[in-house]
Amino acid sequence: MTAARISDVDVTDIRFPTSRELDGSDAMNPDPDYSAAYVVLRTDAGDGPEGHAFAFTIGRGNDLQAAAIAALRDHVVGLSVEAVCADPGSVSRALVGDSQLRWLGPEKGVTHMAIGAVVNAVWDLAARRAGKPVWKLLSDADPEWLADQVDFRYIEDALTREEAVALLRKGKDGAAGREARLLADGYPAYTTSPGWLGHSDEKLVRLARQAVADGFTQIKLKVGADLADDVRRMRAARAAVGPGIRIAVDANQRWNVAEAVAWTTALAAYDPYWIEEPTSPDDILGHAAVRRGVAPVKVATGEHAHNRVVFKQLLQAEAVDVLQIDAARVGGVNENLAILLLAAKYGVPVCPHAGGVGLCELVRHLSMFDFVALTGTTEDRVIEYVDHLHEHFEDPAVVAGGRYAAPTAPGFSSRMRAASIAAYRYPDGPFWTADAAGGRPAVRQEGTHR
Amino acid sequence: MTAARISDVDVTDIRFPTSRELDGSDAMNPDPDYSAAYVVLRTDAGDGPEGHAFAFTIGRGNDLQAAAIAALRDHVVGLSVEAVCADPGSVSRALVGDSQLRWLGPEKGVTHMAIGAVVNAVWDLAARRAGKPVWKLLSDADPEWLADQVDFRYIEDALTREEAVALLRKGKDGAAGREARLLADGYPAYTTSPGWLGHSDEKLVRLARQAVADGFTQIKLKVGADLADDVRRMRAARAAVGPGIRIAVDANQRWNVAEAVAWTTALAAYDPYWIEEPTSPDDILGHAAVRRGVAPVKVATGEHAHNRVVFKQLLQAEAVDVLQIDAARVGGVNENLAILLLAAKYGVPVCPHAGGVGLCELVRHLSMFDFVALTGTTEDRVIEYVDHLHEHFEDPAVVAGGRYAAPTAPGFSSRMRAASIAAYRYPDGPFWTADAAGGRPAVRQEGTHR
Repeated sequence: MTAARISDVDVTDIRFPTSRELDGSDAMNPDPDYSAAYVVLRTDAGDGPEGHAFAFTIGRGNDLQAAAIAALRDHVVGLSVEAVCADPGSVSRALVGDSQLRWLGPEKGVTHMAIGAVVNAVWDLAARRAGKPVWKLLSDADPEWLADQVDFRYIEDALTREEAVALLRKGKDGAAGREARLLADGYPAYTTSPGWLGHSDEKLVRLARQAVADGFTQIKLKVGADLADDVRRMRAARAAVGPGIRIAVDANQRWNVAEAVAWTTALAAYDPYWIEEPTSPDDILGHAAVRRGVAPVKVATGEHAHNRVVFKQLLQAEAVDVLQIDAARVGGVNENLAILLLAAKYGVPVCPHAGGVGLCELVRHLSMFDFVALTGTTEDRVIEYVDHLHEHFEDPAVVAGGRYAAPTAPGFSSRMRAASIAAYRYPDGPFWTADAAGGRPAVRQEGTHR
Repeated sequence: MTAARISDVDVTDIRFPTSRELDGSDAMNPDPDYSAAYVVLRTDAGDGPEGHAFAFTIGRGNDLQAAAIAALRDHVVGLSVEAVCADPGSVSRALVGDSQLRWLGPEKGVTHMAIGAVVNAVWDLAARRAGKPVWKLLSDADPEWLADQVDFRYIEDALTREEAVALLRKGKDGAAGREARLLADGYPAYTTSPGWLGHSDEKLVRLARQAVADGFTQIKLKVGADLADDVRRMRAARAAVGPGIRIAVDANQRWNVAEAVAWTTALAAYDPYWIEEPTSPDDILGHAAVRRGVAPVKVATGEHAHNRVVFKQLLQAEAVDVLQIDAARVGGVNENLAILLLAAKYGVPVCPHAGGVGLCELVRHLSMFDFVALTGTTEDRVIEYVDHLHEHFEDPAVVAGGRYAAPTAPGFSSRMRAASIAAYRYPDGPFWTADAAGGRPAVRQEGTHR
């Protein structure tokens, strides 16, 4: 085992036909086909574990995302499994540091998401070898080691290594008790399933009521396409759930700053909890202006913030009330560690983006670590939950009573079922070949799509 | 001619072995192989012009950049040549607006550079059909039409369409006289050729003296790898050129904020004119902090700023004294128009990034338009010049007496010579196949590499 090396990097283009049911429809993304550029780190360790992870895209371009992952192959093949598992940050640094590939970012776009996929696969491998879920691996880790997993380049003006170590040491106080509570009670979730733009008002109301009956205390509505529609939908949703349930609204980057303020103000009578992605994800100062303009409605963003430098500035500029990390947008667990530490220092709650395909599975590990061994709280913190495509994962997200259960299987919960990979491989899996032939797809659709 | 359509999009991976002479070496890019993901818009217009342009990369990943351009093919093939030339912005909007591809950015990284390449090829086509160089096409254009070429989404809080039109109308005053002066005298340049990190002190001093003898009033040194080296090199350069020549220094994103301030301060005795890319190109607030810390040394950045939203914030935050546009990083001429207009409104001089391969050829058109028909001045404005790889272009940049000559041939000067494309095609052009075989490359190296 000690001499094992990473022997190959397999990359697969996997696409699901989600656009056909308008699940996932919003003001900027009318017809997403949720897709994964899926990576497997193979090893020569015989029956030892592999590392699985993926970048998430919404259809076209998933082949390009897969090619970006494949371009990292030479950096990874031949590395010692033991060495990379002992220090996943070494892989992160090597990939971010490729001076020629760096020109294509730096640290943004498909090349950075590719790095995130490979780094997350290393964490999956490390956690499987350690026999722990990633949240537990992180929670058990030594503060000095965890701090060494963070790249402080470009964020030292906001967070030094010493401050990070101090936050992580403080996070150890009472961690055992919180771990027990997490395993018993799970972590709060909110649901976006009621509020897609493609749903009828009737479906919105029905799903909103169902969400409350299922134990959720927060739901989310997509907005931003038509103001009159949004006012009507928001009024209907508020009437359906009553005053005690938080309703977040999400514009998916649709507006300019002034539009964001005006539109949010027009919805204020129905008490929106946060306005999410009101404008460009690159517009730190714009978010700060929106926040000043819409208070007390909170401002949330982050699912498209491309690296720790953007998150740092969102905090420095007091541009957000809620920080939304994404497990598959930035450079993997290592960069998300940096972002969680920044948020902890600035006292801003992290409410992760999830949904898509596999994002719920991954990101719960990061919030659960944050609760057990960093901030120590779930107050005003919820993980997004969208009820689709979980059936394709070996260790799917389980939400009951409005809370995510803590995963206990070793790894990052990032491993897709072999049958799903084979069926939805694009363009040559049987679902897509049958679809292209105009026939009935040969793949049985499993799981519940409410 | 009126019925002509875009019939095909050809993409070629072209790489030059620049790393072998350490031309282009800096603190973050020790061994770049300057490369172009080259695009040709073919038409069915018989002997009508094609549109040529490219994205610039520095080696590895140029295949990925080429694939990103190819992914846009379906948006472009079949479009009316007349329609796209009458409104290049329509192509820009269609490409930026692809809701699935947008997820891979949005408006950043290889996917956005790909859009820039295609949009620039449309401008090359339009200018060839109009029988004008791009700078002249822009300078002659109606202010309302030019404003319609700009996407004001996400920048309206800093610049409205009405303000843009007013700036462009004002730019028309005296434009004819400035055009005559431009054609007679050219546009000021500065040179980076003396200051690559890979050069010996002797070579640095020799090239710096040569630059002054050649008529340049500004040179640039790469810094950021080793402070003692930089102090020694800066002292030698200042001694070589005397007090009257501006010496810019360029850290290529090497530092944290505090390091940037300390390092620049350590060089202050030798009167650096600007510090370029002191830290992450994403760090707007970081640049503002550096600027406060190093004044009166100026702060310059922009070659890696990925879209107009970043430039907007650099201006809003008073983070820069000098804005550096790049012809091939953002979404093409249309987005650079937005950036030039923002800079004009905020009164910040634009000194374009150039060098690489073909960047000098392209970006001079934008500065020349800015002089003739927007800001009307070249005061404190210079275009970067690097003396290599120009021999591969049909309409190469010509610099004499420290000034860029105005190109007069129709188009964007973006067309590479067919022999160069064939020779440096990667990996199957004769230069690379001979190189891989260990033989002497069969390609004659033309031009002067001083």
